[in-house]
Amino acid sequence: MLAIINGPNLNLLGRRQPEIYGTKTFDETLAEIRADFADTRIEYFQSNSEGDLIDALHRLGYDPDCGGIALNPGAYAHYSIAIADAIEAIPVPVVEVHISNIHAREEFRHTSVTARAARALIAGCGRDGYALALLYLQRLANANNQTDTKVE
Amino acid sequence: MLAIINGPNLNLLGRRQPEIYGTKTFDETLAEIRADFADTRIEYFQSNSEGDLIDALHRLGYDPDCGGIALNPGAYAHYSIAIADAIEAIPVPVVEVHISNIHAREEFRHTSVTARAARALIAGCGRDGYALALLYLQRLANANNQTDTKVE
Amino acid sequence: MLAIINGPNLNLLGRRQPEIYGTKTFDETLAEIRADFADTRIEYFQSNSEGDLIDALHRLGYDPDCGGIALNPGAYAHYSIAIADAIEAIPVPVVEVHISNIHAREEFRHTSVTARAARALIAGCGRDGYALALLYLQRLANANNQTDTKVE
Amino acid sequence: MLAIINGPNLNLLGRRQPEIYGTKTFDETLAEIRADFADTRIEYFQSNSEGDLIDALHRLGYDPDCGGIALNPGAYAHYSIAIADAIEAIPVPVVEVHISNIHAREEFRHTSVTARAARALIAGCGRDGYALALLYLQRLANANNQTDTKVE
Amino acid sequence: MLAIINGPNLNLLGRRQPEIYGTKTFDETLAEIRADFADTRIEYFQSNSEGDLIDALHRLGYDPDCGGIALNPGAYAHYSIAIADAIEAIPVPVVEVHISNIHAREEFRHTSVTARAARALIAGCGRDGYALALLYLQRLANANNQTDTKVE
Amino acid sequence: MLAIINGPNLNLLGRRQPEIYGTKTFDETLAEIRADFADTRIEYFQSNSEGDLIDALHRLGYDPDCGGIALNPGAYAHYSIAIADAIEAIPVPVVEVHISNIHAREEFRHTSVTARAARALIAGCGRDGYALALLYLQRLANANNQTDTKVE
Amino acid sequence: MLAIINGPNLNLLGRRQPEIYGTKTFDETLAEIRADFADTRIEYFQSNSEGDLIDALHRLGYDPDCGGIALNPGAYAHYSIAIADAIEAIPVPVVEVHISNIHAREEFRHTSVTARAARALIAGCGRDGYALALLYLQRLANANNQTDTKVE
Amino acid sequence: MLAIINGPNLNLLGRRQPEIYGTKTFDETLAEIRADFADTRIEYFQSNSEGDLIDALHRLGYDPDCGGIALNPGAYAHYSIAIADAIEAIPVPVVEVHISNIHAREEFRHTSVTARAARALIAGCGRDGYALALLYLQRLANANNQTDTKVE
Amino acid sequence: MLAIINGPNLNLLGRRQPEIYGTKTFDETLAEIRADFADTRIEYFQSNSEGDLIDALHRLGYDPDCGGIALNPGAYAHYSIAIADAIEAIPVPVVEVHISNIHAREEFRHTSVTARAARALIAGCGRDGYALALLYLQRLANANNQTDTKVE
Amino acid sequence: MLAIINGPNLNLLGRRQPEIYGTKTFDETLAEIRADFADTRIEYFQSNSEGDLIDALHRLGYDPDCGGIALNPGAYAHYSIAIADAIEAIPVPVVEVHISNIHAREEFRHTSVTARAARALIAGCGRDGYALALLYLQRLANANNQTDTKVE
Amino acid sequence: MLAIINGPNLNLLGRRQPEIYGTKTFDETLAEIRADFADTRIEYFQSNSEGDLIDALHRLGYDPDCGGIALNPGAYAHYSIAIADAIEAIPVPVVEVHISNIHAREEFRHTSVTARAARALIAGCGRDGYALALLYLQRLANANNQTDTKVE
Amino acid sequence: MLAIINGPNLNLLGRRQPEIYGTKTFDETLAEIRADFADTRIEYFQSNSEGDLIDALHRLGYDPDCGGIALNPGAYAHYSIAIADAIEAIPVPVVEVHISNIHAREEFRHTSVTARAARALIAGCGRDGYALALLYLQRLANANNQTDTKVE
Repeated sequence: MLAIINGPNLNLLGRRQPEIYGTKTFDETLAEIRADFADTRIEYFQSNSEGDLIDALHRLGYDPDCGGIALNPGAYAHYSIAIADAIEAIPVPVVEVHISNIHAREEFRHTSVTARAARALIAGCGRDGYALALLYLQRLANANNQTDTKVE
Repeated sequence: MLAIINGPNLNLLGRRQPEIYGTKTFDETLAEIRADFADTRIEYFQSNSEGDLIDALHRLGYDPDCGGIALNPGAYAHYSIAIADAIEAIPVPVVEVHISNIHAREEFRHTSVTARAARALIAGCGRDGYALALLYLQRLANANNQTDTKVE
Repeated sequence: MLAIINGPNLNLLGRRQPEIYGTKTFDETLAEIRADFADTRIEYFQSNSEGDLIDALHRLGYDPDCGGIALNPGAYAHYSIAIADAIEAIPVPVVEVHISNIHAREEFRHTSVTARAARALIAGCGRDGYALALLYLQRLANANNQTDTKVE
Repeated sequence: MLAIINGPNLNLLGRRQPEIYGTKTFDETLAEIRADFADTRIEYFQSNSEGDLIDALHRLGYDPDCGGIALNPGAYAHYSIAIADAIEAIPVPVVEVHISNIHAREEFRHTSVTARAARALIAGCGRDGYALALLYLQRLANANNQTDTKVE
Repeated sequence: MLAIINGPNLNLLGRRQPEIYGTKTFDETLAEIRADFADTRIEYFQSNSEGDLIDALHRLGYDPDCGGIALNPGAYAHYSIAIADAIEAIPVPVVEVHISNIHAREEFRHTSVTARAARALIAGCGRDGYALALLYLQRLANANNQTDTKVE
Repeated sequence: MLAIINGPNLNLLGRRQPEIYGTKTFDETLAEIRADFADTRIEYFQSNSEGDLIDALHRLGYDPDCGGIALNPGAYAHYSIAIADAIEAIPVPVVEVHISNIHAREEFRHTSVTARAARALIAGCGRDGYALALLYLQRLANANNQTDTKVE
Repeated sequence: MLAIINGPNLNLLGRRQPEIYGTKTFDETLAEIRADFADTRIEYFQSNSEGDLIDALHRLGYDPDCGGIALNPGAYAHYSIAIADAIEAIPVPVVEVHISNIHAREEFRHTSVTARAARALIAGCGRDGYALALLYLQRLANANNQTDTKVE
Repeated sequence: MLAIINGPNLNLLGRRQPEIYGTKTFDETLAEIRADFADTRIEYFQSNSEGDLIDALHRLGYDPDCGGIALNPGAYAHYSIAIADAIEAIPVPVVEVHISNIHAREEFRHTSVTARAARALIAGCGRDGYALALLYLQRLANANNQTDTKVE
Repeated sequence: MLAIINGPNLNLLGRRQPEIYGTKTFDETLAEIRADFADTRIEYFQSNSEGDLIDALHRLGYDPDCGGIALNPGAYAHYSIAIADAIEAIPVPVVEVHISNIHAREEFRHTSVTARAARALIAGCGRDGYALALLYLQRLANANNQTDTKVE
Repeated sequence: MLAIINGPNLNLLGRRQPEIYGTKTFDETLAEIRADFADTRIEYFQSNSEGDLIDALHRLGYDPDCGGIALNPGAYAHYSIAIADAIEAIPVPVVEVHISNIHAREEFRHTSVTARAARALIAGCGRDGYALALLYLQRLANANNQTDTKVE
Repeated sequence: MLAIINGPNLNLLGRRQPEIYGTKTFDETLAEIRADFADTRIEYFQSNSEGDLIDALHRLGYDPDCGGIALNPGAYAHYSIAIADAIEAIPVPVVEVHISNIHAREEFRHTSVTARAARALIAGCGRDGYALALLYLQRLANANNQTDTKVE
Repeated sequence: MLAIINGPNLNLLGRRQPEIYGTKTFDETLAEIRADFADTRIEYFQSNSEGDLIDALHRLGYDPDCGGIALNPGAYAHYSIAIADAIEAIPVPVVEVHISNIHAREEFRHTSVTARAARALIAGCGRDGYALALLYLQRLANANNQTDTKVE
């Protein structure tokens, strides 16, 4: 099993300015992702609450069935040291996902305190970012993966 | 055609502390990637020189055959506004890749000035990051891709 | 319908140091406001939870009956980018209200990240600030209001 | 009597980009405000000079007939400690008004040094902000108004 | 009655890296503390949610039976001005406790915004910190305690 | 044996503004502490000189009889990297004590460079802080104490 | 008609340290410039007052005969957001001129807040800078000038 | 002889977004400049490489025939202390040119470290800036030019 | 002749909170000073306008009869680089005076940009500061005064 | 009795670069001062040690005969919070003196942490500053001196 | 074999302001050094290009004959994280050399990002610094050298 | 005669963690150095006190027999402006020595305020740094040494 956790305001996808961004909700995106990863159960959780997100990270992060979490912490990425601590405290690997390229937006979005604790960051790939994160988590589980932590 | 551009010190992969990180060079990694993307030509360029990297971005970024560039700017990510300007000046989409999770390293690696100009950033997925970037660039070319630029 | 949303610690009004600030609770203030705005339904919500405040902004911000929200984010004003994103994501106009003049207090209260996303800010008018905000939201709805966004 | 003091560049209202913001001058706005506050004399002063604004604050701020001042310090809000000191030195209450939401503009407009000394701040309500400020100053004069200075 | 409130991630004690830190949960620690303070009822509350922690501070902070609160705000210590405001708004004295020495960890943990509002801070004494805090709160209640607020 | 070391200006206790803080000197406090810790010798040293404090830390920190040091570095806490280095260089555990809650005072007192090197920090418990520090140092000596250094 | 506006202290030219910089006043320089631009009327204004400079910018900036303004804001360049706003509010193009190279002087002279609003900046060309600015303003008026605003 | 040196990305002029900025290359601009300065040889060099730009500055800066250099360092202006040192090390005067007004762009472009070492800066005059720079360098060579280095 | 120049808000002396600070105006203080310096003419100027203060500095600073200026720039001390430049541009020595100790007030009053250009600073001596400044200016004129500019 | 306390390196006066600053030692200056203040005993103390300076401030600051202290803390002014605390802890008024104008020297000398605690600051008056400080301390003792602490 | 690598602008030695610094080129200095280290081959490389310097570090840093590198990175010391990474990636020890004392020059030269990765730094010893660096590298190779990395 | 002055905590060499760094005291190192510099008397002084170090610098810095001082200011390097002033005030040249590479340690050790005043800095060469410093001081005395102060 792999998990996707979405943070604040991501429940509005498909509802906000549909004339520009279309009407596709995250549920539809999730269905597509589940179709792509047919062999793997994909658990999904969304909340606007920092505390609920930490609870979910604890629950899934200690679930022996869970092979990895694709976490989009939304704006909490920029100040929630509590979520960062939760990521650091669980044994399951976490990949942080952002739909937009946060480095191309306002100054205060250029750093992510939660990414300090995550294994990897994927930002700006749109909703494809979730699938890429899950793909990487699968490879990570299958192979004896080893990241060169001192190489750019 | 898709391209991979590697910046400074990445030519040392496989040579540096092989007892820890193994002896696999980037050439071997490149061969694996080319095998995975059998239908697409993957051009490769590496240089330690900022100017040469800009030249390569110009050449590939205006090449009508080039569908996208996976760029690992190495440490230049943290100060080369000149490379950022080059990315912004070319029509071909660029995905920035880092082998390690730069947000989990020294403070001065937590932001990337080149990522401000790139379309997306993938960091911390090890060498798998290159394949993920190419995968996304392919999807981008095939679909009428649209990123929700105001959504985390 | 217009709405008032109160953030953390504002439930203590009338209870905290009553010998100095009096014993009037916000319920009493609310009753006075409702009397003043007799023709308009005034919905009220208070929570100490950032997530609940975002939920309320989503619910009221997409409610076709809601003409505007007077939001006192309390201390979340100074760091909750998540609430700021919620304000930016909803079509209903939001006026930020603070009872005290936040610019006259500690340094860290001099800026408001949520005010960046709100339409207007009213601070330091005491509890009258809520009525002023509602008054402005009414004017905004009635007239073809147009703010000179590049004029101090 | 209540007073409105306008700072630098506000004399251009109605003249600047009239195709976008319309041709209504502040004189016309002032006439509307005076009609709304028929029972109260509204004195008006505008200057582009920091010194003249301080002089006006001194004159009106010690005028026993003056019940309050709605002050739009324009860009001086962001650096004129001299105006802030003038506000602090006079007994008449001052409400700072900005037509646009200064917190939603450039970084250097996010704080106001004059607001530190003012009683309240109203920003982003367009020209309605002046009327709201006067309304509050009236309430302040009539009631034994008491702001909870330690509550957000 | 005295109270202990634990913030985010502290529910994981005894579960995280047990091979290093042992398997003692906070429940076991709590039992030891209660044994030590046999004459005093020790109420306990834990939550990962900022809002719930504020609710608990309000409830206990206005409870006439409560003589003091030992609060470990976890990572919220470093940014939750809302919790700081809650501490300041209640009459019951609060002592902030951290298990580790936060001053010896990452730069962003060197200051505590909640400690600005608390009466005292005890950090780095391990789980013993809770007992020390309760001990101090007892002395505070018994004696006509007076801290020399202008002496280091 | 346990030791108490007091830094600059703490010799004035009982002398400074006695009408407010009383006339109790630190000698009297020390007598009370010695009475409380009847079984343990409590060595005491005070100096206003940074160098003398370092000398004392060296002497006591390498004294095989010394089980721990309660150090109040006074204002040196905020800039004396030399004292911090001394703390780090000695094998005896040091608990930093401040009579007032330094986090509730001027901005420049909110961090402590010496606390980075100390084992723990107790601030704001008044003169009781010394006894709490000694109590903790005793527990530390008796038990096979183990602090969870990665837990808030 | 083109205009030159000089800010504070520039009236001292020729008077200050004449043994080093010579005795040529700005009037003499102005005569030379007028001789060089024989076909164009050159209006001149100098003031040490921020408010008067804003008044002059308004007057000349809305004068249909005025083709451009060469403005040396003197030290106001470094803090007068009010002058910057005036520049932005007028339709006539403004070129900022500094006699010395402000980037080679004290740190606080390295940025210019007024230059943010001006069309161009010429600094360090001595008094020749005024002629260069007028020359550019003439070219601008004659040609269908188009600046590549995204190119260094 | 006078020289023009262009830094990174300026080789793309005329190629980048031609539908907006036109198709005029720098070669065409150079031809116009050479026509304007018919009596003077204008040497031209462009490179994307920091090292090559330094080499060129050394070569031309010690060339006895060279009367001055108009240098557009591109983005290197904002961080290349090495180029700044090269400018300072050569006897030939250097005028820094930027096509756009760098002070009106992103924050990090508001200062120029190379301008600290240059004699003058011309920014925002479009491609005309090169001609203005050469004009000034000619005046500088002909006259016994003297800049008032302590006057704004 | 010696001169005293007073900046913004100092005309309010004796009028502001007379119940606390008394009703002595600066005119009365000036009369006392003139009595003390019976042999010297003391010229006096006050303005709230930055430009007028610069004008006065120019006029007095080049007056051959003027032996020195005691300048209280008021709040302009903290941001008026234009006044600082005026001080630097005149040959007459200037001593900056502040009635209160600016270093003991708000953070932004701890530095003075005008003091960088003045010869000396006297702050916190109340209105006596003016007399002390004049006394020093007299000594300066009489003796071949020489300040040890590299000694604290 | 009045006291003069000199901090680090001031013992070198008259010895350092005598060809520039002359050979007058501070002893000679002290003799002159004592001659000027014939009716008052002037005690003198100098040390390079921060601790010794604090000791001296304690001793003189609680001496009932001492009417005031002229303190030149030398470079300690810029970082010794311990000396600042000593000044704040003693009842005798302290005037800080600096021979040079510290605001006109290196950036790090522009603020004084000790001046925050002192009553007044006199800087840049050369050695005359000591006499001016003593003069002010005398006036302070004789008159019922009252500083307008909220006036620049 | 030992190596000396010189960065940007160091090729100008002997050519720049020879009337002040003399005409000795680095070649002459190199000859002297080679004479002093007669038993050791001294390889020399100079470039103004960041990329070439990295290439040289890679080549020499993996050369089994190379016992150490004396590197003067010139101005790259202050921003080239890429060179720092190269130093960190090679097994051969690197000593950073600067001819001038960079700590005594402009603020931005006070830190060295390359020195973070180097083994040691020698600055301000003039050209003698190279010989001292080589001497240390020799000692390092001969002895089982051990630096006390936690001691100042 | 040459001198070595060691600052705080350096007296612990050989005593601190001897199982890692060995048991060699500085006395033994000093003996080796004296053996190496057989023809020169090497005076030695160590103190943990800032004041004593300044006294020693004064004494040795004006000693006509002293040809130079190798000073390891320990942690005082990072904040003691008083020691920096002492170095600047003495005619004897000072070379600052650090055993470890301070640039590779914590952020606050990356700059040295004392090195601003010293002639040179040698850091990271272990205890060999002292010998290298003395060697350089000898060369300095013998030759008509001339450092190129404007060359990296």
